[in-house]
Amino acid sequence: MTKRYAVILAAGKGTRMKSDLYKVLHPVCGKPMVQYIVDVLQRCKVDQMITVVGHGAEKVRDQLGNASEYAIQEKQLGTGHAVMQAENTLHKKQGTTIVVCGDTPLLTQETMNELMDFHESKQAKATILTAYADNPTGYGRIIRNEQQSVEKIVEHKDASEVEKEVKEINTGTYCFDNEFLFNSLQKVGNDNVQGEYYLPDVIEILQKQGEAVEAYQTADFNETMGINDRVALSVAEKWMKKRINERWMKEGVTIIDPDQTYISPEATIGKDTVLYPGTVIHGNTIIGERCHIGPHSELKESAIGDETVVKQSVVHQSDVGKRVSIGPFSHLRPETKLGNQVRVGNFVELKKVSMGDESKASHLSYLGDAQIGAGVNVGCGAITVNYDGTNKYLTKIGDGAFIGCNSNLIAPISIGEGSYVAAGSTITNDVPGESLAIARERQTNKEGYVKNKK
Amino acid sequence: MTKRYAVILAAGKGTRMKSDLYKVLHPVCGKPMVQYIVDVLQRCKVDQMITVVGHGAEKVRDQLGNASEYAIQEKQLGTGHAVMQAENTLHKKQGTTIVVCGDTPLLTQETMNELMDFHESKQAKATILTAYADNPTGYGRIIRNEQQSVEKIVEHKDASEVEKEVKEINTGTYCFDNEFLFNSLQKVGNDNVQGEYYLPDVIEILQKQGEAVEAYQTADFNETMGINDRVALSVAEKWMKKRINERWMKEGVTIIDPDQTYISPEATIGKDTVLYPGTVIHGNTIIGERCHIGPHSELKESAIGDETVVKQSVVHQSDVGKRVSIGPFSHLRPETKLGNQVRVGNFVELKKVSMGDESKASHLSYLGDAQIGAGVNVGCGAITVNYDGTNKYLTKIGDGAFIGCNSNLIAPISIGEGSYVAAGSTITNDVPGESLAIARERQTNKEGYVKNKK
Amino acid sequence: MTKRYAVILAAGKGTRMKSDLYKVLHPVCGKPMVQYIVDVLQRCKVDQMITVVGHGAEKVRDQLGNASEYAIQEKQLGTGHAVMQAENTLHKKQGTTIVVCGDTPLLTQETMNELMDFHESKQAKATILTAYADNPTGYGRIIRNEQQSVEKIVEHKDASEVEKEVKEINTGTYCFDNEFLFNSLQKVGNDNVQGEYYLPDVIEILQKQGEAVEAYQTADFNETMGINDRVALSVAEKWMKKRINERWMKEGVTIIDPDQTYISPEATIGKDTVLYPGTVIHGNTIIGERCHIGPHSELKESAIGDETVVKQSVVHQSDVGKRVSIGPFSHLRPETKLGNQVRVGNFVELKKVSMGDESKASHLSYLGDAQIGAGVNVGCGAITVNYDGTNKYLTKIGDGAFIGCNSNLIAPISIGEGSYVAAGSTITNDVPGESLAIARERQTNKEGYVKNKK
Repeated sequence: MTKRYAVILAAGKGTRMKSDLYKVLHPVCGKPMVQYIVDVLQRCKVDQMITVVGHGAEKVRDQLGNASEYAIQEKQLGTGHAVMQAENTLHKKQGTTIVVCGDTPLLTQETMNELMDFHESKQAKATILTAYADNPTGYGRIIRNEQQSVEKIVEHKDASEVEKEVKEINTGTYCFDNEFLFNSLQKVGNDNVQGEYYLPDVIEILQKQGEAVEAYQTADFNETMGINDRVALSVAEKWMKKRINERWMKEGVTIIDPDQTYISPEATIGKDTVLYPGTVIHGNTIIGERCHIGPHSELKESAIGDETVVKQSVVHQSDVGKRVSIGPFSHLRPETKLGNQVRVGNFVELKKVSMGDESKASHLSYLGDAQIGAGVNVGCGAITVNYDGTNKYLTKIGDGAFIGCNSNLIAPISIGEGSYVAAGSTITNDVPGESLAIARERQTNKEGYVKNKK
Repeated sequence: MTKRYAVILAAGKGTRMKSDLYKVLHPVCGKPMVQYIVDVLQRCKVDQMITVVGHGAEKVRDQLGNASEYAIQEKQLGTGHAVMQAENTLHKKQGTTIVVCGDTPLLTQETMNELMDFHESKQAKATILTAYADNPTGYGRIIRNEQQSVEKIVEHKDASEVEKEVKEINTGTYCFDNEFLFNSLQKVGNDNVQGEYYLPDVIEILQKQGEAVEAYQTADFNETMGINDRVALSVAEKWMKKRINERWMKEGVTIIDPDQTYISPEATIGKDTVLYPGTVIHGNTIIGERCHIGPHSELKESAIGDETVVKQSVVHQSDVGKRVSIGPFSHLRPETKLGNQVRVGNFVELKKVSMGDESKASHLSYLGDAQIGAGVNVGCGAITVNYDGTNKYLTKIGDGAFIGCNSNLIAPISIGEGSYVAAGSTITNDVPGESLAIARERQTNKEGYVKNKK
Repeated sequence: MTKRYAVILAAGKGTRMKSDLYKVLHPVCGKPMVQYIVDVLQRCKVDQMITVVGHGAEKVRDQLGNASEYAIQEKQLGTGHAVMQAENTLHKKQGTTIVVCGDTPLLTQETMNELMDFHESKQAKATILTAYADNPTGYGRIIRNEQQSVEKIVEHKDASEVEKEVKEINTGTYCFDNEFLFNSLQKVGNDNVQGEYYLPDVIEILQKQGEAVEAYQTADFNETMGINDRVALSVAEKWMKKRINERWMKEGVTIIDPDQTYISPEATIGKDTVLYPGTVIHGNTIIGERCHIGPHSELKESAIGDETVVKQSVVHQSDVGKRVSIGPFSHLRPETKLGNQVRVGNFVELKKVSMGDESKASHLSYLGDAQIGAGVNVGCGAITVNYDGTNKYLTKIGDGAFIGCNSNLIAPISIGEGSYVAAGSTITNDVPGESLAIARERQTNKEGYVKNKK
């Protein structure tokens, strides 16, 4: 089988982004755009992948890691020059090389595979990925000859009136015979206004040599979109969102308003779950079946069990059981682990907490650095005092304990199974099992005090 | 006047929904789609309504109740077979029968009435509801004869190139002469690939008998949309939302962003009220005039008085007075009743509470199972301790009382009129009127303690 | 240079708005629509501006203040009559008068300037601002003569079939030679069905006098939209939102979902700041660079320093430093001032508070009327008791103090530098520096209490 290589162009500074961040690192639906390209090429099982990065682009390498090899383009001297940087790695290898820009995150695995398959079936030396544009203004037009091969690519500014009517455009993604690619690149000059080496010049060089150049037209123009500014970035976000949301709707997830539901490409959602408007799901979050999430909830890197409800709340890096009820207005911070049928009500913050099955913290609580058993009732306003200004300490609460309202549990501390902490108590010492702990002053009524004061 | 009957087809499983819920029970803007059909037919004042449900579809019957009669279609043998199940009830009755699918929730009363009026004015035996589709791909085309009656319906797959150009399509809603309908249904066969009995075959049977079949074209294609998967469900939601929101805007409600405002078809909103983005209004909620609701507020089955403000809050099954201020970030749970000019600030939860005019709970409170008079000030963090782990108890607070910050009122308890509870007190006994209740330890300063500790 | 005058028509009641508020005062993106017109005309540097207001329209004058002069139109007798009310001020002045409706908030400075420049370059007596409408139904059509001047304006209802095909429409904005305008207005009659004096009649009068009437066609039809009901108001809001958001995206701001991000036309946002969905930015808010705002945050008249994060929170009239973290679910009320690297966590309310650098209030606190130093740690549930039912008092907390959880600081009070307030204490007296203040009962454990009770 033909070997397949990929060159990803990721060195462009993206000046129109007006950003300190490398263009290809700007995220779409939370994932940097170049990562989409690498992920898709991995799924395409290309044999070797070289990402061409700019000088000092450590962040691109940090992002992609070992998924790709790298070539450095010290100076930005054009797309042809960029591909040339991969020469050390790919020169004289037999096979097919796909060249794709790192700013086209919407390209699918299907399209890339179809392009490479078409290229190889045609035994072409070069194949251009093209698309049909309703409004082709600004794009290079594909002029085909009678054999439907490519006669030439005409830039918009150079196109005749007849050529401007052509709506098949060059998407900027190409397939090449690898050896012909690098041989031709040697011949590309920079005798133009910008003084740059352009990759499309390879096409003309091959044609002059009498080699066939083919064009493969993909069905979806939007998919080929390159991102040059943040308006385009927001459009790509919208299309990616639509793609992700339609996928989940077809899998049996109800999304009340797909325009307002933001799901990471890495997330998983179970059947008959309902996502309400303003739901934001980041990262590798896994949501079970028959859950109700939102409105206006944010989940990040969390696992949510079946039939759990998360209303107007934020859940980060937490592991939530089945039939749990969270919110409205609660906040689960990292390393929270909730059993089944736990209830977390409103204005509750959890951090590094485990809560056993059927435990409850219904109102206005902060529980941090705590191990809480099953069937525990944490009263309104009860909090773990886990910090003394220097260190953090652990709170343990046994099964079936009842923690009274507005009580303070000063950690390190342990409340025994089945014990009862009286409301309004500040608890400084461990409480044995099945005991009552109390720490509050008795009430005095000063009768008529208010009346007399008047 | 001609008697009118309706047969609602609600037995389809809707496999493309990939749901455990019957397709017709999936809600659009919070109301199950089949309920829209039944509601519209009720407003059309049809004399008799039969909903054809699948085997074991108790939930459909639970939803619709006595508004409809029911017929069971034990096996899903096609739309013709489905209508046949209504034969016991409707056979030999004189009149008009409208057959409508339970998955077309956008159909309006106007359209159904116009269809039946047209049908009767034409003295037709059958009338097809049609629409003009910009893109008719996949739909059955209506081929009319010179008299503008229907010559035939051609399925997309069977259509000639000329027929494919026809943009008038069959919506799947029909009117019939009732007797002719059931007579013809007897003749429908199942000699087709699926082995099903198709309702449209009745049209051909009638035509072969020389009966006129008419077509009534409705203006709005979108209205006739049938819902087969959750992508379509989300589109129907969008159109219904637009319809509801435009209605209220025309009535004098400002909706800052209609794309992001979700109003139940049962809700009512007063003039000059402003709805901010992310507002969700469920069920039979009634909102007064000159209110400001949202952003990001959720109201459910509640009544909101004039000039009330609800910011970033959740209000369920509550009755809220005039000029009340709620939020941001508050939560009114069921059975809350607020007088006029009440102020509920941030991070406040109310449940089964009444608060008299001009009372305030401004910050971080939970008030549950409480009767609170007028002019009461509930301090920050003050809470009703209504639960002892077994039972819930009542708190009463008299007019003009002042409940100090972070105090606990341990129910059952009564705070007299004009009384004052000192901040930080846990109150276990009733407080008489105009008195001061205090229950806290005096302060000790250990001077230099921190310095010495270093 | 030619003098330039403007007459703004702002007297219309706007009955289709169904509102108690004058039509031109309805806001678009938070700013009343007539204010847009006045602001643009000010930037156009017109020499004199007269706003024609209805009888009793004090609110319009209150809104616009001294930016405009005013003329009163006591009775609504048509647009011609409205302009006539400016006669006292403008009669016999030489120059150009632009007449613009107060309900066209999308008109830009560029368009108004181009219109006046075109008018003056043509030495026309009248110039109509026109636009190309895809669907011109309902609009007056511009019929041009061979010289491309205006032959006539034909109202939709009076248009022939050929004229109906014309897609250049009258936007209702005009430029006039000022003297000709008022001379011609004298001749306008009210012999029509409504009995009103129509401004467009001036055009016909000028033409009959043999004066050239020109038309200047602007590129963007949407910009010329007049708002007559709240559906149109919501459309204008959408376009204005798009215009504002695209501006900031081009300046280097990432807006994840521009459809769901609401930025005041007066706000300023720094480069590489990210706005998440549901962000609402009111008034003259200034946001620094590299901030993360939202999702679902509301900022109003505030200043936010670089690299600050505001998640699911509300910030009003506050001044926030750099690298501050706010939220989720916090509420900064007016007159809050935060230093750099302050942390305000969840369920925290601040009001008239200053907090020095690196101070923290992480959970469930209310801090009001307080001066808080640097490096202070306010524990969970700690609150300032600033109100005794009659007056509000000040709390001072020195640098480096540690305020224990669920403590009450009863103002007026001062906590010295470096001091420590024990959790659960109600502090009524000043605490000296580097001291420990404690005010709570010791704990008693009643062992086996729960067991015995069973």
